[in-house]
Amino acid sequence: MKVSVLGYGTVGKGVCDMIERTPGLELGPVLVLHSERSESFMITDIDEILKDSTVGAVVEAIGGESPAGSFAERTLKAGKHFVTSNKAMVADRGIELSALARSTGKAFLFSAACGGGIPFLHNLSVARKSDDILSMSGILNGTTNYVLDMMQSKGVPLDTALSQARRLGYAEADPSADISGLDSYRKIILACAVAYGIQPEGYKDIEGIAGFTQQDAEVISRRGAEVRLIASGGLNGDGSVYAFVEPRVFFDGMERAVRKNFNSVSYTGRNSGLITYSGQGAGRYPTASAVLRDLTGIEEGTLYMLPAECVRRPAVNDMEERYLVRCEASQKDRFITEEVWSEEGGTAVFVTGPMEVSRMHSLAAELRNSGQGIFFASLGD
Amino acid sequence: MKVSVLGYGTVGKGVCDMIERTPGLELGPVLVLHSERSESFMITDIDEILKDSTVGAVVEAIGGESPAGSFAERTLKAGKHFVTSNKAMVADRGIELSALARSTGKAFLFSAACGGGIPFLHNLSVARKSDDILSMSGILNGTTNYVLDMMQSKGVPLDTALSQARRLGYAEADPSADISGLDSYRKIILACAVAYGIQPEGYKDIEGIAGFTQQDAEVISRRGAEVRLIASGGLNGDGSVYAFVEPRVFFDGMERAVRKNFNSVSYTGRNSGLITYSGQGAGRYPTASAVLRDLTGIEEGTLYMLPAECVRRPAVNDMEERYLVRCEASQKDRFITEEVWSEEGGTAVFVTGPMEVSRMHSLAAELRNSGQGIFFASLGD
Repeated sequence: MKVSVLGYGTVGKGVCDMIERTPGLELGPVLVLHSERSESFMITDIDEILKDSTVGAVVEAIGGESPAGSFAERTLKAGKHFVTSNKAMVADRGIELSALARSTGKAFLFSAACGGGIPFLHNLSVARKSDDILSMSGILNGTTNYVLDMMQSKGVPLDTALSQARRLGYAEADPSADISGLDSYRKIILACAVAYGIQPEGYKDIEGIAGFTQQDAEVISRRGAEVRLIASGGLNGDGSVYAFVEPRVFFDGMERAVRKNFNSVSYTGRNSGLITYSGQGAGRYPTASAVLRDLTGIEEGTLYMLPAECVRRPAVNDMEERYLVRCEASQKDRFITEEVWSEEGGTAVFVTGPMEVSRMHSLAAELRNSGQGIFFASLGD
Repeated sequence: MKVSVLGYGTVGKGVCDMIERTPGLELGPVLVLHSERSESFMITDIDEILKDSTVGAVVEAIGGESPAGSFAERTLKAGKHFVTSNKAMVADRGIELSALARSTGKAFLFSAACGGGIPFLHNLSVARKSDDILSMSGILNGTTNYVLDMMQSKGVPLDTALSQARRLGYAEADPSADISGLDSYRKIILACAVAYGIQPEGYKDIEGIAGFTQQDAEVISRRGAEVRLIASGGLNGDGSVYAFVEPRVFFDGMERAVRKNFNSVSYTGRNSGLITYSGQGAGRYPTASAVLRDLTGIEEGTLYMLPAECVRRPAVNDMEERYLVRCEASQKDRFITEEVWSEEGGTAVFVTGPMEVSRMHSLAAELRNSGQGIFFASLGD
């Protein structure tokens, strides 16, 4: 099968290299911007690909919602398979594009959009056919995991850790979607769409790591624990879905063993029990390897990851968690406090009783809107 | 598709339950022994299944090489798909049965034979089509992991831990293949067969946990480390394969976070990097869930895990490792010693310089043959 690639950046070049090394695949024209055109196989007009009847599949590795979304639509309408690593675009238009793909009989696959090189979405889409996926959670952003690991194992401040991550190529030039938790959230809602045919909508209850300080790291380290940024998604008892992102405190467990820029993501199947996948969540060849698995899967008839019927529904995050909270001491009474870890210099660190996830996130937003600092992390059992 | 099941024990009953709950699958006759026949869907003559043209696939959950192997052959010759969880039988006859299956156009799948509920073999068989699998290693036996965890986290002796494992249903009535490392070895050679089309033969360099004592656990714990039983397999530079099983010392890392009867297994792909899978390596529904993933895969055209060309070759385990060794002090000079941890009461605990894996295993066998005790564990980097 001849495969064209849109974009020749980090992921695009990795995909091109791998296609050239994979038996049964052949590299077609590669779309780049005028300013990037340096090789004869590069073109600057997508129509050359869409009109080329020898091209069977197109890989999109441009990133961003636009023009990637319209390129996807035009590719499918031109009767070619479409594979992408673009989580923002799939979160935005994946349901419609998958339906379009099914109507044309062509593939719409996006393994690399959640977990990078980890084959999480593929395995979810296989498992859901014979098992009930009860819940999912994981570390889905390598940049924030690297920053948290450096802050907690080396004692460096967030900004320094982030600069290191950028120097090592782990962080984007603009890492705001990583730090805010938005990138992790996009990945977990894609996992919900694959597992349940329901994509949570609303983009709420997303807490990243911007509020995490060296002092917070020290307080938690003194108790023998560490923080990781966890995206959670799953099915509520009433058939609605939940999805949220927040820091979580780990006293032990697999997540705590996830270091540097690694990702780790689990699902619990009613029959399979807990299954955890860990690996490189980003990077040229890990991400390209996920794209290539999609491409070789097409040749064996695996064309879709989303179920045939897929809808958007508001996330209902009404389960209760106990939280570790650090805020101004004067605000402590707004919480039901189970245990006070420390209270000095006008700052309190304490453990709350069980409270709704959504309530915790909205209280934190309230405090921030009134100019106060807060850090919170769920505590688990 | 109508599916018959051979055996109605732990795994067989789980598979029957799941088939009945899975859309698109229907339970056919179930083969049991005369003494076990208690339901109308149970039969005692396999010919009733083989001659039933409405049965499309057969799941074997009897265990052991015989008669499972001949049941597999007869099923495939009768033109039906064959799925098994039986690692001993697949290690023994898998290559020939997979070739037979390809000649009949029917499936031969055995996901549940390595890692129980963990979809390791399936993902290996997908990944090898576009990536080079450089190496594999993991905790592939839940019984020994449970025993090691209890010995090291609770300080109980091996026998007590093994009795607990049996009470909890983690250990077989006869756990000798678990404790000796043979069960883990069978699983890693199946993984080699899937990844490389080369199944290591010779059943050598298999060290289990029988030699591990509470004193060993204490010495290692004092250094801040823990032991896990690791099966390793991979490709040597000259195209030969290696495969061996031995205890390994972990100062940190994912393996150390694997507790109780959980399994964890990794591969390193040239492009994907290290990917780790962890979950329940045994148990009724976890194992059944792997069988069901194979069955639903058949309907989508996934019929084989072994490559079309698959051969047996001797394992070449000539890479070097540093080892922690505990043996009689008088035998210490037989090793190149890098660091002595302790030497008292006639017993020495020390770290060796790099030595060939095969050399370490044969030295240990020599000492045991002369009636002496020894424990060894590789140290990693």
